[in-house]
Amino acid sequence: MPPTADDLTRVACCQIAPRVGELDANRAAGLGAAQAAAMTGAAIVVLPELSASGYVFRDIAEAKALAEPADGPTAAGWAILARQYGITIVGGICELGTNGVLYNTALVVDDSGVRTAYRKAHLWDAEKLVFTPGDAPPPVIETAGTSLALMICYDLEFPEWVRLPALAGAHLLCAPANWPSLPRPEGERPIEVVRAQAAAGTNRMFVAVCDRAGAERGVDWVGGSVIIDPDGWPLAGPDPGDHEITIVADCALPAAADKRISERNDVLTDRRPSLYAGVTREDRDD
Amino acid sequence: MPPTADDLTRVACCQIAPRVGELDANRAAGLGAAQAAAMTGAAIVVLPELSASGYVFRDIAEAKALAEPADGPTAAGWAILARQYGITIVGGICELGTNGVLYNTALVVDDSGVRTAYRKAHLWDAEKLVFTPGDAPPPVIETAGTSLALMICYDLEFPEWVRLPALAGAHLLCAPANWPSLPRPEGERPIEVVRAQAAAGTNRMFVAVCDRAGAERGVDWVGGSVIIDPDGWPLAGPDPGDHEITIVADCALPAAADKRISERNDVLTDRRPSLYAGVTREDRDD
Repeated sequence: MPPTADDLTRVACCQIAPRVGELDANRAAGLGAAQAAAMTGAAIVVLPELSASGYVFRDIAEAKALAEPADGPTAAGWAILARQYGITIVGGICELGTNGVLYNTALVVDDSGVRTAYRKAHLWDAEKLVFTPGDAPPPVIETAGTSLALMICYDLEFPEWVRLPALAGAHLLCAPANWPSLPRPEGERPIEVVRAQAAAGTNRMFVAVCDRAGAERGVDWVGGSVIIDPDGWPLAGPDPGDHEITIVADCALPAAADKRISERNDVLTDRRPSLYAGVTREDRDD
Repeated sequence: MPPTADDLTRVACCQIAPRVGELDANRAAGLGAAQAAAMTGAAIVVLPELSASGYVFRDIAEAKALAEPADGPTAAGWAILARQYGITIVGGICELGTNGVLYNTALVVDDSGVRTAYRKAHLWDAEKLVFTPGDAPPPVIETAGTSLALMICYDLEFPEWVRLPALAGAHLLCAPANWPSLPRPEGERPIEVVRAQAAAGTNRMFVAVCDRAGAERGVDWVGGSVIIDPDGWPLAGPDPGDHEITIVADCALPAAADKRISERNDVLTDRRPSLYAGVTREDRDD
């Protein structure tokens, strides 16, 4: 049965251009873009990784000066907007933990406030000098009438990590990102998008990645925000080039409950986990 | 340091069009294509899944009539060619096990004979009515001066399975396939190729998939043979359309030993296997 309008959830990724250090301006940009998306009917709005602080910190001291608790000012602003429009907002902040250490964190905020705070478990490059990696699996929460999962940027490149929320029943995986731009062959889609397509198709779940725009201290970004269906096809994005844009797709999220891909195949029950044990046994965590 | 000619290994995928039931003609087609590839310098030649028997069996009795032991006539022909040209041949057969059951099997044959026989562990659709799934992990063997791993078609869509040979040190993953054709949006690459690109990039290993051509009993094929580098980019293929073709790429296979992707990142050591345990604990093998 094809989805009806009632089954469709409008998902938006607001690819803004934060500037490192400009907390107030960045928060305002995120709120402005999220509000605009809400006014056009988006029920779930995704913002980039580290959307309030910016990304390219000079050092840990600068990052610490831009950090806030999970229920700090950024979350408070999102909560007001979420209540006003009845939407769910997903996005990243630089989190100051109660223990004084920093986490690269993403929040889900809806009309009942901060629903979850997820700490990035796989850190990219110089993030390792600033952040403590999280140890908790990607959360899956009920919001906006769906089962929404959360991870951040480089996390997506570990298929074992993506599998966890799929097994836990997520229909939509939201991933705030800051994808640094890398060279690629002429005519090719960004490889990060290719991997996100595989993540969606392999698990038959929707994936919404919100990347950022705007060069920062010599780092350019892919600008590859994309919303992908359970077959692995982009419904919206990636828009060519690195610029501010909001991409929007109407997603039949309940379709992600159906993992069948042929008369006799199902991408989750076809797994043979007892044979995969080598993956966890063969090497050690570091 | 860029690779020199000495570091390059020519890999060929011979996308032939087997016809179900025509064992002699199919074996001859595989040998002919492999020989032609060897004569142009290929050191590793990959043939499709079930290359000798064809794929769309009417029933298990027909499959059984087309089955052979792992060291049967198909392997014997490949071994002669492998010795003659000093090449390694990878391809699929319908295997009759010593216990009388059937396996969807791929072989690696080089100048010392049959090096390994791998039985497909993840069966596609009606294969479940014919074949017994294998229980052994993808083998990794030293041949043609490299570490070559082997799996078959749908196996590739289980990232946990692809991870095993990467962790075991494979530089090139060869995957004989019979990819049934599915609809896809205009301008999109086949999703099977997208997933193979992700498999390569996620593990920084070369991936060579040899698909088949030629409609068989109403089933069309992607014809998506592709050779992919550790960044995830196709070096050769997929050639549009479903037809017989040999694709060739000169691959700097030792580059797959280097898993670094930034000053501080390595796709294998960045894994956090102690956190992935949920994947094997949460559900049961069936």
